Amino acid sequence: MASQAVTPQSVDFSAWYNEIVYKADLCDLSPVRGCLIIKPYGYELWEAIRNGLDRRFKATGHQNAYFPLFIPESFLKREAEHVEGFSPELAVVTIAGGKELEEPLIVRPTSETIIMESFKNWIQSYRDLPLLINQWANVVRWELRTRPFLRTTEFLWQEGHTAHATFDEAEAETRQMLDVYADFAVNDAAIPVIKGRKTEREKFAGALHTYTIEAMMRDTKALQSGTSHNLGQNFAKAFDIKFLDESNQLQHPWTTSWGLSTRMIGAIVMTHGDDKGLRLPPKVAPYQVVIVPIYKNDDEKGAVLEAVARLQAELAATNIRLYVDRREGLSPGFKFNDWEMRGVPVRLEIGPKDVQNGTVALARRDIPGKEGKQFVSQSGISAKVNELLTEIQANMLKQAADFRDANIHDVQSYDDLKAVVEKGGWGRGWWAGSNADEGRIKDETGATVRCLPFDQPGGAGKCFFSGQSADKIALFAKAY
Amino acid sequence: MASQAVTPQSVDFSAWYNEIVYKADLCDLSPVRGCLIIKPYGYELWEAIRNGLDRRFKATGHQNAYFPLFIPESFLKREAEHVEGFSPELAVVTIAGGKELEEPLIVRPTSETIIMESFKNWIQSYRDLPLLINQWANVVRWELRTRPFLRTTEFLWQEGHTAHATFDEAEAETRQMLDVYADFAVNDAAIPVIKGRKTEREKFAGALHTYTIEAMMRDTKALQSGTSHNLGQNFAKAFDIKFLDESNQLQHPWTTSWGLSTRMIGAIVMTHGDDKGLRLPPKVAPYQVVIVPIYKNDDEKGAVLEAVARLQAELAATNIRLYVDRREGLSPGFKFNDWEMRGVPVRLEIGPKDVQNGTVALARRDIPGKEGKQFVSQSGISAKVNELLTEIQANMLKQAADFRDANIHDVQSYDDLKAVVEKGGWGRGWWAGSNADEGRIKDETGATVRCLPFDQPGGAGKCFFSGQSADKIALFAKAY
Repeated sequence: MASQAVTPQSVDFSAWYNEIVYKADLCDLSPVRGCLIIKPYGYELWEAIRNGLDRRFKATGHQNAYFPLFIPESFLKREAEHVEGFSPELAVVTIAGGKELEEPLIVRPTSETIIMESFKNWIQSYRDLPLLINQWANVVRWELRTRPFLRTTEFLWQEGHTAHATFDEAEAETRQMLDVYADFAVNDAAIPVIKGRKTEREKFAGALHTYTIEAMMRDTKALQSGTSHNLGQNFAKAFDIKFLDESNQLQHPWTTSWGLSTRMIGAIVMTHGDDKGLRLPPKVAPYQVVIVPIYKNDDEKGAVLEAVARLQAELAATNIRLYVDRREGLSPGFKFNDWEMRGVPVRLEIGPKDVQNGTVALARRDIPGKEGKQFVSQSGISAKVNELLTEIQANMLKQAADFRDANIHDVQSYDDLKAVVEKGGWGRGWWAGSNADEGRIKDETGATVRCLPFDQPGGAGKCFFSGQSADKIALFAKAY
Repeated sequence: MASQAVTPQSVDFSAWYNEIVYKADLCDLSPVRGCLIIKPYGYELWEAIRNGLDRRFKATGHQNAYFPLFIPESFLKREAEHVEGFSPELAVVTIAGGKELEEPLIVRPTSETIIMESFKNWIQSYRDLPLLINQWANVVRWELRTRPFLRTTEFLWQEGHTAHATFDEAEAETRQMLDVYADFAVNDAAIPVIKGRKTEREKFAGALHTYTIEAMMRDTKALQSGTSHNLGQNFAKAFDIKFLDESNQLQHPWTTSWGLSTRMIGAIVMTHGDDKGLRLPPKVAPYQVVIVPIYKNDDEKGAVLEAVARLQAELAATNIRLYVDRREGLSPGFKFNDWEMRGVPVRLEIGPKDVQNGTVALARRDIPGKEGKQFVSQSGISAKVNELLTEIQANMLKQAADFRDANIHDVQSYDDLKAVVEKGGWGRGWWAGSNADEGRIKDETGATVRCLPFDQPGGAGKCFFSGQSADKIALFAKAY
């Protein structure tokens, strides 16, 4: 294992991130431009995300299915805005089985089009609705600039695709799935996301409305962490999907789509990480507890490992995910640093004196140094650790929410916004600007409207940019 | 729902299969040549397979990771036999981000090459070994003739890739993973597979040894259902992977790979299905129990649905996977046929008389007609159903094993084999033939060596084909 010195966040957050994802063993570089190798530790984190979401999808009546990786070029062209949105990013298969293909195949950048083609066959009557499908898949977007987990040429995600009899039902589904994302983000990933609507400028290509959960990273930049789209009848019309309604009239259904990707790994890293490494919320951590045995000779080793085995069995019985670091030839201090780098929420240290005294040292990753360390009795360790994990989960959410709230500033004028963005933070203000206004702000400050939050003050005010009367506040920030 | 009439197996097994996978709602045709859409019912079956295997992989110390979909063309060419084996089947990305790529990218047909490139970086010393990695992924092989689940252009699978310090360790891993596959096939999928070694002619391109589990389908054709390869040092040498051993010598590690795919869905369908549809083993069935309420009017409906809700709650409490068919406007008889088509192991029928008498009718899918139906008390239904599921699981394995054993015939001569193959069945005989002999037998009879079974009689005999002395028996069959 290499040296664990990391560029501090305060010096260069971007460098910190780019170092830490590799040092914490989440991923590795690949020989394919813009593609990442997700290493076992990173993949376990993804499995926790996937399982947390999949459970929620199934509980809300969705079923998984699988559609082809390849999309005929002509499909993508059917929805005009959609093809325009994705064209520059496509990877195209032109040769297969040794021959040039008559029609090139696109490696899916998202699956709306090919799934709509199936929906056309599956939907005949109102009895076939709602149709609630989800897919776990890899997708490819040929991005020019890539960063581990945040923007990669190939990434893993889920994409939900549903069809409904009415606009209202589709809208309710779109909002429900945003709530599912937010519930996962807040309660499992300890990320206090803000739910809101995207502006016309920022919405998905081909959507009526796009809803988003936006998270604040430790550098105060925003990360869009999941989106849910009400696609109206746009795709249903483009793909000629029709159903007989209860009064025997032919109608186009209303469709939605929603996606969350391996980007969530980046969100977890940048919401919680510090200069010592990752800090993983217990609910998604591959290991919730690491046990580091401490000994100097074989006598001590025997006694310590015996006690470790006992504690391990007791903790495992309560389904705590746990790793015992039995590696030889590495000092306890090295191991402590290593597990702090990997962000394990609780470290349990046990040496010969602890064996004698029936004690154990517990160090929590969310509170640094001595303040986060306690010495407790070995008896009742499971209850104690479970309690501590719950406490850490809650505390990490609170820390992130406090940080977020301290870095959102009300703005009354464009100068205010410029100052906020320059200093680092999100600007919140009344907004009635146009697409062009958003474009100008982006060009001049680098900030975009992250969302029009669902949580609004009510009433009306004066748009900080245009001076016009506004009935919504917007959140502006630089974003990943 | 369309008519459920199916071509009988005895009339045309191939037609039976091609109809049933669609009628049972496992899959749908896709607009992309050779690619399948896996519908929710089929995908749930795949999830059961995936979960059953993933649990076993983790229990034997393997970790999941994820490698890029694309493989640089040059990588594939490094191992000579490997590229020769896959060249005709490749799908090639030549354009990405609007530009022609300098080096074309192959959509992975399997990931040995790109994973070995990582192993080169991850393996330095004997302490890094064994390295035990698995990947769940989609792969693409541009097959000319495709059949749902059995051979599709894109398919889902897992591919394990491991590296070891010695030949013996690699060989033990290769055999262990075949045992894992066999354990899943026999105990979860109720498929009595035969474990064995592939001949030189049939082994994987680039492997030292290939082991296989072979299953007999209801038409007596063989289906290779999972393979495990000892790759020797071939890939380690081709990718220049080296490690310092305990005596400080540089060595090439020994690698293995092993894969099982959505083909297993086809194996389950063709091992157990009958003229009424699928028959799914309880351990992998998306629904283990379906409840069909029977009523003629609203009074009856109220009473019946109340009893159904009670039974549902009681069964769900024991984690039985269950579906209540509350669909309106469909007769009970239609529903019975529909769930028989989908292969649900246990059907529970409840009507007004059952409500009065506190009874319920239980029909098991593995025993047709009245013989498989019983009327039992509602009290203690969970215990009864759980017992029945266990019994069905065991009975389906026995039925399949009996069928298999009745259709394997010892052969003393080539004429014997021809007769067996013509009649439908597997030939088992002493074998000392050459690659060319195998080729001739294939050309003349359509049968190939499925494997040299691990379970050998011992001793020696006379090769039924060449007349030479042989110390192994081989299994010959037509195969999918």
